[in-house]
Amino acid sequence: MRNVWIIEEQGFDREKIEDNGNKFLLGNGYMGIRGTLGEFGKEQLVAVNLAGIYDQVGDGWREPLNAPNPLYTVLIVDGEKYSILKKEPIAHKLSLNDRQAVLSRETTWEGSKGQIRLCSERFLNMENPHLIYERYEVICDFAGNVTVQTGIDADVWDIYGPHFVNFDYSGEEILSVKASIQENRESVWVFENIEVENKEFLVDCGVEQRDKTVLHHFSYRVQPGENVSFVKQCAVYTTKDREALDGCLAIQIDTIFEQDLLGSYERLKQEHIAWWEEKWKTSEVWIEGDEEAMKALNYSLYHLHSIAPRHSESLSIAARGLSGQTYKGAVFWDTEMFILDFFLYTEPSVAKTLLRYRIDTLEGAKEKAQGYGYDGAFYAWESQEGGYDACSDYNVTDVFTGRPMRTFFKDKQIHISAAIVHGIMRYVNVTGDRSILEEGGIETIVECAIFYYGLLLKKVSGDRYELHDVIGPDEYHERVSNNGYTNRMAKYTFESASMLLSTLAEYPEEIRQRIEKQYAVEELKERFADAAEHIYIPEPDSDGVIDQFDGYRTLEDVSLEEVRSRLLHEKEYWGGAYGVASHTQIIKQADVVTWLTLFADEFSKEILTKNWEYYEPRTEHGSSLSACMYAWLACICGFPDKAYPFFLKSATADLKGGGKQWAGLVYIGGSHPAASGGAYMNAIHGFAGVSFQDGRILVNPKLPSNWKKMRFTLIYQGKKYRIEINGKDASVTEL
Amino acid sequence: MRNVWIIEEQGFDREKIEDNGNKFLLGNGYMGIRGTLGEFGKEQLVAVNLAGIYDQVGDGWREPLNAPNPLYTVLIVDGEKYSILKKEPIAHKLSLNDRQAVLSRETTWEGSKGQIRLCSERFLNMENPHLIYERYEVICDFAGNVTVQTGIDADVWDIYGPHFVNFDYSGEEILSVKASIQENRESVWVFENIEVENKEFLVDCGVEQRDKTVLHHFSYRVQPGENVSFVKQCAVYTTKDREALDGCLAIQIDTIFEQDLLGSYERLKQEHIAWWEEKWKTSEVWIEGDEEAMKALNYSLYHLHSIAPRHSESLSIAARGLSGQTYKGAVFWDTEMFILDFFLYTEPSVAKTLLRYRIDTLEGAKEKAQGYGYDGAFYAWESQEGGYDACSDYNVTDVFTGRPMRTFFKDKQIHISAAIVHGIMRYVNVTGDRSILEEGGIETIVECAIFYYGLLLKKVSGDRYELHDVIGPDEYHERVSNNGYTNRMAKYTFESASMLLSTLAEYPEEIRQRIEKQYAVEELKERFADAAEHIYIPEPDSDGVIDQFDGYRTLEDVSLEEVRSRLLHEKEYWGGAYGVASHTQIIKQADVVTWLTLFADEFSKEILTKNWEYYEPRTEHGSSLSACMYAWLACICGFPDKAYPFFLKSATADLKGGGKQWAGLVYIGGSHPAASGGAYMNAIHGFAGVSFQDGRILVNPKLPSNWKKMRFTLIYQGKKYRIEINGKDASVTEL
Repeated sequence: MRNVWIIEEQGFDREKIEDNGNKFLLGNGYMGIRGTLGEFGKEQLVAVNLAGIYDQVGDGWREPLNAPNPLYTVLIVDGEKYSILKKEPIAHKLSLNDRQAVLSRETTWEGSKGQIRLCSERFLNMENPHLIYERYEVICDFAGNVTVQTGIDADVWDIYGPHFVNFDYSGEEILSVKASIQENRESVWVFENIEVENKEFLVDCGVEQRDKTVLHHFSYRVQPGENVSFVKQCAVYTTKDREALDGCLAIQIDTIFEQDLLGSYERLKQEHIAWWEEKWKTSEVWIEGDEEAMKALNYSLYHLHSIAPRHSESLSIAARGLSGQTYKGAVFWDTEMFILDFFLYTEPSVAKTLLRYRIDTLEGAKEKAQGYGYDGAFYAWESQEGGYDACSDYNVTDVFTGRPMRTFFKDKQIHISAAIVHGIMRYVNVTGDRSILEEGGIETIVECAIFYYGLLLKKVSGDRYELHDVIGPDEYHERVSNNGYTNRMAKYTFESASMLLSTLAEYPEEIRQRIEKQYAVEELKERFADAAEHIYIPEPDSDGVIDQFDGYRTLEDVSLEEVRSRLLHEKEYWGGAYGVASHTQIIKQADVVTWLTLFADEFSKEILTKNWEYYEPRTEHGSSLSACMYAWLACICGFPDKAYPFFLKSATADLKGGGKQWAGLVYIGGSHPAASGGAYMNAIHGFAGVSFQDGRILVNPKLPSNWKKMRFTLIYQGKKYRIEINGKDASVTEL
Repeated sequence: MRNVWIIEEQGFDREKIEDNGNKFLLGNGYMGIRGTLGEFGKEQLVAVNLAGIYDQVGDGWREPLNAPNPLYTVLIVDGEKYSILKKEPIAHKLSLNDRQAVLSRETTWEGSKGQIRLCSERFLNMENPHLIYERYEVICDFAGNVTVQTGIDADVWDIYGPHFVNFDYSGEEILSVKASIQENRESVWVFENIEVENKEFLVDCGVEQRDKTVLHHFSYRVQPGENVSFVKQCAVYTTKDREALDGCLAIQIDTIFEQDLLGSYERLKQEHIAWWEEKWKTSEVWIEGDEEAMKALNYSLYHLHSIAPRHSESLSIAARGLSGQTYKGAVFWDTEMFILDFFLYTEPSVAKTLLRYRIDTLEGAKEKAQGYGYDGAFYAWESQEGGYDACSDYNVTDVFTGRPMRTFFKDKQIHISAAIVHGIMRYVNVTGDRSILEEGGIETIVECAIFYYGLLLKKVSGDRYELHDVIGPDEYHERVSNNGYTNRMAKYTFESASMLLSTLAEYPEEIRQRIEKQYAVEELKERFADAAEHIYIPEPDSDGVIDQFDGYRTLEDVSLEEVRSRLLHEKEYWGGAYGVASHTQIIKQADVVTWLTLFADEFSKEILTKNWEYYEPRTEHGSSLSACMYAWLACICGFPDKAYPFFLKSATADLKGGGKQWAGLVYIGGSHPAASGGAYMNAIHGFAGVSFQDGRILVNPKLPSNWKKMRFTLIYQGKKYRIEINGKDASVTEL
């Protein structure tokens, strides 16, 4: 039994270029580099995707930037270009060591005079996240002329671009491209420093700037078995970086680059591996009896580590991580509800960074609320810089008419604000650290409660408080009333805000004064308590099933297969006003099940089970946020083997690829960090059965039948614990 | 100056068959016979359309019946069939005397041996509404063999048929077809009695039943100038008729038919004309200075007379009158809001019959409300027998996918109930007759108020009462909140109910007891008064304009032409979730303007004018309920010349034809009684400026500049008045 840390793809399949870009992604939170090859360009979706910097061109969607690619490399042997796209190799292997976060590539071609073998490997610096390293090597088994062109390709892949204008190319020893973006005055700089080995074989070298590239070329005359190799160190900065202030960066770049790159490469790589080893000490999950699950789960954690914004104190994670521009590089509820737990338990400082982003965008959320005439904080459905909501009122394109469809994600998916509240409260409860509340968390939660309070409706003829005209997690049913998940989360918000306002005395004087200056504390306390008491929470019917929203079960009750068979177009959107699912009970993703999972202790196991059984066959699982909730609830209900396939679906979302790439005519491909986070939650909460009570860790294992043992580390309230599970037994050891 | 009572169409144009069917319609409230020719069949939309009897086949829409056509006649001369569809005539004229309600046809063909002239005329009995008369004559200017096949064609035009099964043909002297319908045990019988002239030229005659016809044939050998002629008397009954109980009708039919038909025809026709003359005494509107308007307006009144259900004490008028099966033969708010006034002022007994239909379908309205979990009475949007709502949840078909579109007319157009209340209250106020209140009107109004009361919402954080998620008169904007028209009409309902409950003492003891037995009167009175006080009525903005609903003016403000230019398909529906109008300020029909017209005295002239000017250019007038409201309000604002084209549009809706024939892929052609009624309201309320105050008739004329004088009769509170207007002067004379 061993944990296999190699993700490998043998042979070259053009159809897999897109999925492999996600699967072999490298990232360090600051940037993500898709798992593409040196000779690839924008058609192959190469991306050096940057976190937290966006641009909008004309009426197109605002999206994050892909920096110019400093890893662009072309190989020419005896005048012939060796690109895998043009020339079929006899062997090809892409290999990611996901314990070490090093991506290697090995390709062998049969040329007219003999074999040519290309090996390269790359990794990103995790401490200084601007830096990228690559080692490149070519060996021929014949005498020939080998030329390598390598440098920066600024002709980047954009969905709603082009974003870059005013390119400034520079090519002396260090190549660089500086480009500014259209919307504002931000710029991006990319640098490349290279050191070649075996300079004695070099017959020619130089730099050329052509089209949107600036490239070195190195030409060698080599004998059989002599290798041509070099090491690159590249750097990416933007004007948003502190280091880049005043544009004086160009002067300092020399000090950043290594002087002896060839000599330092192996040391740098070992330091890199050591950094990751340190992470795995706390985050690795050991599963005995199921290598596949262990590999997939830890691979998911590799992805989460790779996109954690450790370089910032206030930044979040986009729905597609750092795999590209899809979903506008925006932050969704995915972060708080699906991704947060992993960091809470293994690296709470990252969890805090994620939540700080929300606290720091409270003003944006208040502005959004105001724009709709609401009070309080209505967080962005698709949050970009400053909490700007990138979500369009027309977020899907109709495949039949080519027209944008009016969607309501932005204006009706009000449960987003409660997700922020839930995240902050979980941070406080799991870490025991209330600093986040003092640093704006209280205001954030109070403003969210004010928001929901203003939306509460009551029938003049009735007593209960209701929330109408919303969209719950299941986006296929728009503009529904009393969505159970939304109502319960609003109640949670009222409860949290009411509790915080009732315990202000526990905070330092200046915090209490700050809050009392802003709010009529007593009045709000009463209101929120009243709202929490009277908000309508749908209840199970006589058959134990809870309606997802008012009237849900009056909709057509029809099988998923039947609904799928009604599609007239493969890219057709299932939801909206007239989608194939909209007027049926078929839902996109866990909705009631998400609610019941989060608040499982408010229901009997019988009710939980009945709802799981009712909703599961009616769920398309058309979102990566679905399977993990079904898996988790199945564990709570006591059937981990039913949970298992859902867990595996979450854990392998990026490993297997093939997820939904289109919503209507809008491209939505990329990696699935929420599925990765969901898989982790399944493992820890579901299978291991970890929960917390009165400051204690409870472990109630429900392992799938093929899992013998499980072992992992948890940080809880500032202390680190080793959890070991052996069948039905469990132990918790403070480390 | 004369009133021209001839509607004429010269020549034969295949394209006009459909419009002419509406334009030359004959009707007597029991049935409508489309203005088609004897040789036409179902492809030419022949219809003997019956009032108040419906059938549903399978999943198709429930729709009224078209009876077998007893006027089917084929002419054969010298072995050649003379049908206008097959053989081009040299002259053809269709002519309706709309004062006398007699339709004539004259067609001349040039045959190989000479000219053949066919003349026919038909009218419906107004006293015994089962009876139809037709006179038919053929004259050749050569010697030849003339054969006429005439009888009953049971192969009827159906939209969602076929409705008839189990045909029972009988053909001795009197032809008959009896057929039962699919949904229930109702049957329809059609009889034909014929008497031919000049029997001496008859060479052969007989009866033949073939396919779905049963026909006499009469063959003559005629000399030049000798005419072949006959008179038919036909009868239509259904098992819903009292006379047809127990199926014993067949035995009595002899007693119904004339013995000397040829000899009686002219007398019957004169009696028919006299009946109509009597009607015109009270209903004709005389306009000096504008023959076109006078002709169009009285033609509109002809239509209203033709569809008045005088044979019943409890029956209403369908949206397309008796012109066919479109709109499912259902009763809409058109009747109470647009058609009612004509009968209120000229024949109050018909007005009462229309309203009785609503009172008698209160149970249906309560059932509909219950079905949605509501209290009180939610009247059918498309009302059929018993108040059954024929409106489908999928009332429009998408032109791009061919799929039914989920529409919300049925569930969200709650203003329908208030229209009933408005009609009843207007009946009481105009006629002074409170019997209708005692006969169920009070309960109807109270139940409507209970209905609205149950829908009232209030923000927990606010005081005002609101109505959310509705559709107003403008159906292009679905699921809006606080539609001003709807809210004001609900308030009117609360006011009316509250007033009725406060004045119960004025009613006979048994009425009061009946009401008190059913309702907690005091409690309801308080509730309704409170609701009337607190319901939110949108107010004019600083620019004087009132939002049609919450957020209306945040929608794209774009021209009608621009919106029209966005259509991708000519039959495309403008509304729904993604229609070209839905997310713009372009509206289908008068909405705010309807509200302001009905409640004009609650606004200053400046506000009325500003809203007219704001909404008019943003209105498609895609409904026949739109123009008349714009015309009426323009008169109130004091610009009758701006009103004039809208008035004329209403008055000529059926005369000119060419209205919308399609909503998505659903056929909606037919006559437009609401436009006819609207034209009448314009003339009386708008141009003549008639209103009532404290039992007195006020006349404040605002004639268009080309109208010199106006004269008409009004019945008000049981007395008949002659109103004469001469420019700005007016006189009211009790008759």
